[in-house]
Amino acid sequence: MTLDECRQEIDLLDRQIVALLNDRAKVVEVIGALKQQAQMRVYEPKREDAVYANITAVNQGPLKAEAVKRIYERIIDEMRTLQRDRMAATQEAGQEKDSSS
Amino acid sequence: MTLDECRQEIDLLDRQIVALLNDRAKVVEVIGALKQQAQMRVYEPKREDAVYANITAVNQGPLKAEAVKRIYERIIDEMRTLQRDRMAATQEAGQEKDSSS
Repeated sequence: MTLDECRQEIDLLDRQIVALLNDRAKVVEVIGALKQQAQMRVYEPKREDAVYANITAVNQGPLKAEAVKRIYERIIDEMRTLQRDRMAATQEAGQEKDSSS
Repeated sequence: MTLDECRQEIDLLDRQIVALLNDRAKVVEVIGALKQQAQMRVYEPKREDAVYANITAVNQGPLKAEAVKRIYERIIDEMRTLQRDRMAATQEAGQEKDSSS
């Protein structure tokens, strides 16, 4: 493989990774709505432990388990921000609806 | 979808994401070897800009472009560490070979 071919391959992989990250974000939004209905907290340390256990179990390298975990800390953090933003937006919309009715 | 179904879906997506991150890491290792042969630097800001441009162009949300970029800053950082570790290991192995011959 030449350097250019490697980079084309990376760009292709990145497109798939970004698509999967967004698929994950969509499911996280559904979870956010379900949690809001059930009045559950966004942050659930036990569930996050389960996520880390899953990614560590399936990791076959060359990335080390700690490297994958550090990447996932960022992913989970961004997903939590998205979930909080959406919950806040829904609540605000609900309040506006209440006050206008 | 129930909360449990959502979490099963997330676990499935995470398995695919971890596999793709490792596929990416494998290509990064090939790039590292090519760069080492050509005596090029690991860090190339122009190429990193191209990576960010690619992921921003393909991002369809719900994750915001900045969120995807922050995730990728971590991914690229971990890949760079892997590339440096491998280059150092190869160099060390080369030196040992030299000194033993």
